[in-house]
Amino acid sequence: MQQTLALCRSIHAGHEKLSLVLRMIENTGVRKRHILQPIEQTLRHPGFEARNRLYLAEARARVPGVVEHALASAGVDVEDVDAIVFVSCTGFSMPPLTASLINDMGFRRNTRQIPIAQLGCAAGGAAINRAHDFCTAYPGSNVLIVACEFCSLCYQPDDSDIGSLLSNGLFGDAIAAAVLRGHGGVGFQLERNEAYLVPETEDWIRYDVKETGFHFRLDKRVPGTMSMLAPVLHRLANDHQWNASELDFYVIHAGGPRILDDLCHFLDVPPESFRHSRATLTEYGNIASAVVLDALRRVFDEGIRPGARGLLAGFGPGITAEASVGTWSVVGSAAHPREGSIVPGAREELHRLQPAGQWK
Amino acid sequence: MQQTLALCRSIHAGHEKLSLVLRMIENTGVRKRHILQPIEQTLRHPGFEARNRLYLAEARARVPGVVEHALASAGVDVEDVDAIVFVSCTGFSMPPLTASLINDMGFRRNTRQIPIAQLGCAAGGAAINRAHDFCTAYPGSNVLIVACEFCSLCYQPDDSDIGSLLSNGLFGDAIAAAVLRGHGGVGFQLERNEAYLVPETEDWIRYDVKETGFHFRLDKRVPGTMSMLAPVLHRLANDHQWNASELDFYVIHAGGPRILDDLCHFLDVPPESFRHSRATLTEYGNIASAVVLDALRRVFDEGIRPGARGLLAGFGPGITAEASVGTWSVVGSAAHPREGSIVPGAREELHRLQPAGQWK
Repeated sequence: MQQTLALCRSIHAGHEKLSLVLRMIENTGVRKRHILQPIEQTLRHPGFEARNRLYLAEARARVPGVVEHALASAGVDVEDVDAIVFVSCTGFSMPPLTASLINDMGFRRNTRQIPIAQLGCAAGGAAINRAHDFCTAYPGSNVLIVACEFCSLCYQPDDSDIGSLLSNGLFGDAIAAAVLRGHGGVGFQLERNEAYLVPETEDWIRYDVKETGFHFRLDKRVPGTMSMLAPVLHRLANDHQWNASELDFYVIHAGGPRILDDLCHFLDVPPESFRHSRATLTEYGNIASAVVLDALRRVFDEGIRPGARGLLAGFGPGITAEASVGTWSVVGSAAHPREGSIVPGAREELHRLQPAGQWK
Repeated sequence: MQQTLALCRSIHAGHEKLSLVLRMIENTGVRKRHILQPIEQTLRHPGFEARNRLYLAEARARVPGVVEHALASAGVDVEDVDAIVFVSCTGFSMPPLTASLINDMGFRRNTRQIPIAQLGCAAGGAAINRAHDFCTAYPGSNVLIVACEFCSLCYQPDDSDIGSLLSNGLFGDAIAAAVLRGHGGVGFQLERNEAYLVPETEDWIRYDVKETGFHFRLDKRVPGTMSMLAPVLHRLANDHQWNASELDFYVIHAGGPRILDDLCHFLDVPPESFRHSRATLTEYGNIASAVVLDALRRVFDEGIRPGARGLLAGFGPGITAEASVGTWSVVGSAAHPREGSIVPGAREELHRLQPAGQWK
């Protein structure tokens, strides 16, 4: 945070809204972020081609270690994975990185590839929900979920609107992976999911696509969107015969502090209910689609009783919400999965990105 | 075709492989293609930003008409669509175009958005298969499938390798849409799907991402890949207790003439079995993910007896195959759907792109 504020002060010394921007960055509560390259390189734009090449090389080098950790933690072998949902909005490739992953790690040749590049921060929730749908269609299937976000590779030195400067102080890099097990395991057993698109907010969170790559645009109305999305979460819980205000754990996209504060208010839950999301924000910044996987890892690490009821929600461009409800479960074990379960069990695990350089 | 050859001759007059390239373009068998803009504009590169803006504006303007036609043909209302699978690899946006479609056409706010940008030509088969999976998970659901490919917006005037020149003479623009109905309707009832990634072929079909946008790279080994993929189709049919050589209809990605010739050979079927794919290639060129939807429309238009067994296969970067088998069905009607069906019925329909400019 201190380095970010100092850099912002020196780079944008003459900016007419500098003090507002500095205050906004301080208010994010972000203490530390991990970024791919040392700060000097991060601040230079080498061109879209070089950046995207770096994106691909780093993803290809770093994702397998994270995936190995997730598979080992879930007790699932590469041969037992039936589908890979790979979400990432900070670079582009065709073929998708699922192809590299299958080739490099020895997944089955008929592993379904579900690459999603365009849902931004909402893609973490979307990935979990599409994995849930896949396991519902094919009971007993295992789905690998990967979120790979190198937000620092979308830094645009020439963008100095308030939304860009705030984003420069907010987003961090991360890779996260989780396995949704068709049977057995320990974790968040997904039971119902929901999506929602807020009317007429398409340009509130978006990329402008240019010769210099993806330019992230953040409208000042975005922090206020929880009044529109909280009713969706209430309805989802109600549809499940639950009360969204009375659940045992919450895994919420940490888009920024106001998102979390407002949603606490609208869901009528105490601030500590969102402690996992706040910890992710504080320690990593907004790591886009990886937030919900990291916050879920914290639920896992803290420990929680089987049967605990939870809500998971990702938010992002559209403005889109992708949310799910379920129960913390210990059903069988990796060695002795419970057969015949029609509701997929999930063991979620995240391996932190090993940063080559850091924002400090 | 005549204009393409003439243009190729004049633009690449000094190219050392010109006669080979002209022969390859002639051999594609493409007679006509539709492209978005008049040829003079198509051949000029206005920059990636301007092109991508055009991609978005044209998609937003043209897709709704195609979707309306597909919904009307399927007898499905916008309110009854549960998910939209939107595939397109020739431009990029965040949020995805599913958000515009939901806002512009009045789909339900909780319609699932499944945008896939990175599977290229294989995305048509993948979209159908993911729609099938969704309907399997949620019996009775309706899924809208949209393929939007403006390949002419990836024309790169400075690329003059043989693969690029061939591609410039092969690809066309198109939008296609289809509805996978959960109950009832007339069409291809999906029964089983399969995916396959050929080992170590990741860079055979790919984009290089540059300041000038997406540069399509086509390896000369691509036309020979059917020897690797035909066994996948045989296995898929066998798993379904069918013989891939003895089916009643075939909907095959028309990547080029050799793909179709070789697959005819490896599946041991007469050339007329692939007449629909050949017609798509001849009349539109390779329209990427939209090929399989157009070829399926031709099956529909020609008429086929209920109970006919078919195979659908898309191929693309990875190298990835996405294939499915199923039966031509007339189950109930739009007004009186057959309740309780667990296998989704499909009515496929395509509305041709109304081109603003043409390649002639």
